[in-house]
Amino acid sequence: MMTSSLRETILQLFRETPNGFVSGAQISKTLGVSRTAVWKQIEALRELGYKIEAVPSRGYHLLEAPDLLSAEELRAGLDDSLIGSDIRVFEETDSTNAQAMVLGDTGAPEGLVVVADRQTAGKGRLGRRWLSPGGVNLYVSILLRPTVLPLEASQLTFLSAVAVCRTVAEVSGLQPTVKWPNDILLNGRKMAGLLNEMSSETDRVNHVVLGIGVNLNMPADQIPTQLRYPATSLAIEAGHPVSRLGFARSLLTQVDLLYRDYLENGARPVLSAWEAYCDWTGTMIEVDCQNLTIRGIMTGLDNDGALLVRTATGVERILAGDVRPVGS
Amino acid sequence: MMTSSLRETILQLFRETPNGFVSGAQISKTLGVSRTAVWKQIEALRELGYKIEAVPSRGYHLLEAPDLLSAEELRAGLDDSLIGSDIRVFEETDSTNAQAMVLGDTGAPEGLVVVADRQTAGKGRLGRRWLSPGGVNLYVSILLRPTVLPLEASQLTFLSAVAVCRTVAEVSGLQPTVKWPNDILLNGRKMAGLLNEMSSETDRVNHVVLGIGVNLNMPADQIPTQLRYPATSLAIEAGHPVSRLGFARSLLTQVDLLYRDYLENGARPVLSAWEAYCDWTGTMIEVDCQNLTIRGIMTGLDNDGALLVRTATGVERILAGDVRPVGS
Repeated sequence: MMTSSLRETILQLFRETPNGFVSGAQISKTLGVSRTAVWKQIEALRELGYKIEAVPSRGYHLLEAPDLLSAEELRAGLDDSLIGSDIRVFEETDSTNAQAMVLGDTGAPEGLVVVADRQTAGKGRLGRRWLSPGGVNLYVSILLRPTVLPLEASQLTFLSAVAVCRTVAEVSGLQPTVKWPNDILLNGRKMAGLLNEMSSETDRVNHVVLGIGVNLNMPADQIPTQLRYPATSLAIEAGHPVSRLGFARSLLTQVDLLYRDYLENGARPVLSAWEAYCDWTGTMIEVDCQNLTIRGIMTGLDNDGALLVRTATGVERILAGDVRPVGS
Repeated sequence: MMTSSLRETILQLFRETPNGFVSGAQISKTLGVSRTAVWKQIEALRELGYKIEAVPSRGYHLLEAPDLLSAEELRAGLDDSLIGSDIRVFEETDSTNAQAMVLGDTGAPEGLVVVADRQTAGKGRLGRRWLSPGGVNLYVSILLRPTVLPLEASQLTFLSAVAVCRTVAEVSGLQPTVKWPNDILLNGRKMAGLLNEMSSETDRVNHVVLGIGVNLNMPADQIPTQLRYPATSLAIEAGHPVSRLGFARSLLTQVDLLYRDYLENGARPVLSAWEAYCDWTGTMIEVDCQNLTIRGIMTGLDNDGALLVRTATGVERILAGDVRPVGS
């Protein structure tokens, strides 16, 4: 028996027991494993976020189940969706993007979704780390195979951004904003980040992975204060916890809708939707590029998703850089 | 004992036996395996291209060893080379590019080289197949991690092309030409093809794989006549077979020299070297792009490796397409 199905059986015993108390001996007998093995599985469940009490002479008692993501429950809400045609859920992985890229290399179908409860090497842009504790947030990567030129594929970052914004609004009623190229903000603090990766030939895309990391229920004391940009979570801003499963289902549905529209109508609708979420348009910004800082009025996105900034000498088209509002 | 080292031991027995005849019983005893197992290994060696004669009552006799590629022998000529710091040789694989891309995803170092004797799913540009029989040709993929923007990485196709041209000239004295974007020709027929693949973020390259397929010793009767573009091999054009090992070593050395120059001086030197190998510059060409055919005078490459074509209405900058001389 796989250890995960041992745990499934233990959880089932809790559910089926009227008073909620299950003795170690009872579990041991039902599963046909030693008392030590039972204890190890209980510890593993606790690590997964289950709050399990042990009461002398009565047994184990399940106080609280975590908001776990399972492939079955995610798929349940996505009947006709291209996105989520295959869903892989990891308790822990290095990086959902890394997993999805390798799966893409080895022929996985468009719409594959990789989800992890926690990441040991969560990736941000430019080799930066993405803080990825377990039990609280959403880390998801989506494999796409659009027939576009490689330079067009960066448009898809903005598709992920719009999908996250719509989901945040739907789930919490809050109004997020976006920061070029790949951040989602709530009240000026980062609550989600995007990392799109691509495998391509010179003139053909093999596959694209939309990586989406959302700070959902991370409490304030888990958020580092020394970050490059101040961070928050949806729960902090909304004042209440949010279901990971519900958020994930909505997000995948939004990506599905937006991607179908993108394939049919191109990138302009999604780029315009992104621009509408950006409250820095028309304001003075600074962009740190590799060797210089460009200062000017942000005017929007061009059709490739490049940032357009009107400077004293003309309109700069910026492909890579870190943006900040002037004065902050 | 691994089957490959069983075969190594058999080959060593052949080498160490003065009259060249080794009996099945002797091999069986030395290896500690059954006569049937010996026979299977002899068959496997034959499939690898070894010509082994079986003479009743005398034993097996090695008549001819194929021109095999081994990691040890390849590395022997590449002491200070970044390229070839790690070399993986497959008797058979799906595609050396596919292997190198996955190895790149999982952290393999810059300079990794993947070589295969034959490919079961050799890749050409745009999902086309690359004919990859065993024993005669060279299929090699090189992993690089340049710190360039994704759109600059297509410059590296031209680096591979120049490396192949220099190696052909060095090994055979023949003068190859190039066809944009990724072919090497001898006497107007294709003798090598390049397929560069890349894993990238929007504004960062994770890794690039330079895929190089060279028709070295493929005989005329093994070359299909129904190809998109007429093909040949170096041996056909040179009139004599060429050492795969020697060619591979020279090629990796040329890539190493050119890549060091690229990192130091940028792409222009390599793009200019490519232009010098292109005998269509200044002539009328047609380029089939996705939805249209462009006709004009080829003027060269821009700094990203795009093809520049002067038409009646101006200079077109072509990122993707199939080129042919007008009139052919």
